[in-house]
Amino acid sequence: MLKRAVLLVATVVALRAFAAPADILITGGTIITMAGPNIENGSIAIRNGEIIAVGPSTEIDKQFSAKTVIRAGGMAVVPGFVNAHTHVPMTLFRGIADDRGLMDWLQNYIFPAEAKNVDREFVKWGMRLGAAEMIRSGTTTFCDMYYFESDVAREAKAAGLRGILGNTFIDFPAPDNKTWDAMIAYMRAYAKQWKGDPMITPALAPHAPYTVSADHLKQVRALATELGVPILIHVSETKNELEQVAKAHDNMTPGAYLDSLGFLGDDVVAAHGVWLTPGEIKLFAAKKVGVAHCPESNMMLASGVAPVIDMIQAGVELGLGTDGPAGSNNNLDMVEEMASASRLQKVTKGDPKAITARELLRLATIGGATALGLADKIGTIECGKRADLAIIDLQQAKTQPVYSVESAIVYAASGSSVVTTICDGKILLRHGKVLTVDEKQAIAKAKEYRQKVLASLKK
Amino acid sequence: MLKRAVLLVATVVALRAFAAPADILITGGTIITMAGPNIENGSIAIRNGEIIAVGPSTEIDKQFSAKTVIRAGGMAVVPGFVNAHTHVPMTLFRGIADDRGLMDWLQNYIFPAEAKNVDREFVKWGMRLGAAEMIRSGTTTFCDMYYFESDVAREAKAAGLRGILGNTFIDFPAPDNKTWDAMIAYMRAYAKQWKGDPMITPALAPHAPYTVSADHLKQVRALATELGVPILIHVSETKNELEQVAKAHDNMTPGAYLDSLGFLGDDVVAAHGVWLTPGEIKLFAAKKVGVAHCPESNMMLASGVAPVIDMIQAGVELGLGTDGPAGSNNNLDMVEEMASASRLQKVTKGDPKAITARELLRLATIGGATALGLADKIGTIECGKRADLAIIDLQQAKTQPVYSVESAIVYAASGSSVVTTICDGKILLRHGKVLTVDEKQAIAKAKEYRQKVLASLKK
Repeated sequence: MLKRAVLLVATVVALRAFAAPADILITGGTIITMAGPNIENGSIAIRNGEIIAVGPSTEIDKQFSAKTVIRAGGMAVVPGFVNAHTHVPMTLFRGIADDRGLMDWLQNYIFPAEAKNVDREFVKWGMRLGAAEMIRSGTTTFCDMYYFESDVAREAKAAGLRGILGNTFIDFPAPDNKTWDAMIAYMRAYAKQWKGDPMITPALAPHAPYTVSADHLKQVRALATELGVPILIHVSETKNELEQVAKAHDNMTPGAYLDSLGFLGDDVVAAHGVWLTPGEIKLFAAKKVGVAHCPESNMMLASGVAPVIDMIQAGVELGLGTDGPAGSNNNLDMVEEMASASRLQKVTKGDPKAITARELLRLATIGGATALGLADKIGTIECGKRADLAIIDLQQAKTQPVYSVESAIVYAASGSSVVTTICDGKILLRHGKVLTVDEKQAIAKAKEYRQKVLASLKK
Repeated sequence: MLKRAVLLVATVVALRAFAAPADILITGGTIITMAGPNIENGSIAIRNGEIIAVGPSTEIDKQFSAKTVIRAGGMAVVPGFVNAHTHVPMTLFRGIADDRGLMDWLQNYIFPAEAKNVDREFVKWGMRLGAAEMIRSGTTTFCDMYYFESDVAREAKAAGLRGILGNTFIDFPAPDNKTWDAMIAYMRAYAKQWKGDPMITPALAPHAPYTVSADHLKQVRALATELGVPILIHVSETKNELEQVAKAHDNMTPGAYLDSLGFLGDDVVAAHGVWLTPGEIKLFAAKKVGVAHCPESNMMLASGVAPVIDMIQAGVELGLGTDGPAGSNNNLDMVEEMASASRLQKVTKGDPKAITARELLRLATIGGATALGLADKIGTIECGKRADLAIIDLQQAKTQPVYSVESAIVYAASGSSVVTTICDGKILLRHGKVLTVDEKQAIAKAKEYRQKVLASLKK
């Protein structure tokens, strides 16, 4: 007996001696790599923020000796969710005026509320609140359009999140920049500060084809090329937009109009694309324009139903986004967004087979990563990619039993089923706690802002 | 100073002396009574399962001395959710075959799986799992259609839930009863056992107008009247059903056909009603037929979009249901269901004002209670009603700030935001724990059943 124990210890020591060092080892989970078949009882080794091994736990676990071991039995490990379109600091306006017409909402609530309240402090606290929410629901990358985006960048970086962060260009005085020249100047400084950062990609965000003039759109296009940063823009969201663009620009549709300006390219991410024509879908696929599908927003604002199946079939680089958390959603939950996207396609196509849970997971991970130009770094669980991961607990009453792990995630779980979030190899959520944001403080600040915003609207 | 302290103690003692006894006092919450304006910083006193006081905490708290005090600061207190249509024991088939056509799903998966697996034990464990899930997401009343419903009743009662529980009548051998006569006999015994129970209402559940013959539907109608129990039935769910009924019955629509049999009345609850005609809507309103709207199921199975706004305007007694947790949803989360219902109406009506968060809360509580004939007992927070309540934590990052409490619940929260569930004055969920179901055991059993079901389908 003693002999046997000695032998066992010797073996363990020997294995340890051969084991390579890792920072984190996730073991015993169902790995949805999105780059091949799922791995049951699988492990992932992470070192210096990179995925250095993925495979069956029986093979991987003995190869690595990790500082932190995360046991993922009964859990699914997925690539961190990529929220391909949102306006995170608007968390502070969450629920301010729902169930209203878009123009009433914009003109009587959002625009006045923004004019009176949005400054660098607002953006800082709205972003912190949103960061906590995203981390809690497994989002590791977000594509944002708002004001004072340099502050969003600083907060995102501090929270450990990855972001494509676009500062807004629009043909009226914005909360951050009152003139076009100021917008350009802000953008140059912002890009200079952040370009090359491994986590943050600064971007230009001209609001939409109907709120930015043709000349200004061309300037944005040229500046993006000069700076080597992407462009984010709302395209073909509502019928009203179609009418405005058609009227102003020779009966063209928004996508065709942008193309006529030489605007489109693989560095452009178009949010919504609800009313894209078959011709525009072909064009976007050919030009590798990324599209962010935002079903809950499109439903809530009654914008319409995007041609998701057609876009997928045409090979458009398609991701999934929540849109802003005020008026259009109202949360940043990518798990719910997948379910809504699936159900909306099924009912409007009249076909329960129209789209699958697996396909939704693809859109929410590698689909979005591809649309944002990050597919070489993130979006799948593969060696050499950055370690952006969400671990989803399927051991709850609401997700049991698990016949299909994809189905359990998309149709039964919710963002609150996420128990661990890792971005770039850093643990952001564990044991019920957000580790990189002072969540309590962010919530307290949100309550303060509520009072302030309500008071400002009474003036 | 001493004098002052003595005075204070004396006052407290005096107040205590005048305070009436209560079992539970919920204090400091935002009470959404659904019977009038919300009460900010409000309290609810409960005694013997009944709501005995509702009002501002400053008034109520000094009037009652309660054994259990629940502090609800930053939380919303709503009437317990009423799930107006579901098949709870099907939790054990959750996710078994999603993203398929209805006939493929039914004929190749659900019917064989049911034939080979559904017995009293299956129903017991499926119901326990579902009870835990419902309790965790604030549902206190559910309207069920399945087999061995007497076992569902026993489990529901043990879990502390309220149920309208219909045993299935169908023109083919069912898992519980192989012949029509056996179904009738089962129903008589079931009704005899449970009728008059304060929590459980036994019901007859003829499956649908196209799966039960006219003669049998008439027998069901007569038996329900004789026994004094309600009838639950699927009506006008799919276009296929419309075609079948039209073909078999003089081109009639399902609702009109049922009416021609003298079937409809205020004791009938019709699930779905997706394809109800304007005439049928009028008829259902006039006859006080309850309707259970199941948007997530209708979307997932591509059944269609129910005329919710028309039904509300016509005065139909309308509730909200999740439908079964296998293939149609796949959870029992009434909070998500409200959001889906709202979004689906908005996008299909092309109007973001089509329906409000408040209206959705109404459907999910007093609307459902009215449809099920329970409006005198539950559905609102008023003195004299039974104490069926859900307490929703809005202090989370994803629900802050709260400009509108209804909006925060419907558009930002999810079922997992529910922290306390009370039914008939009994606490079922508190401090993260389901108190009336051995949840761990139910989950372990669910895993066992998964193996068993998968093996049975391979045979």
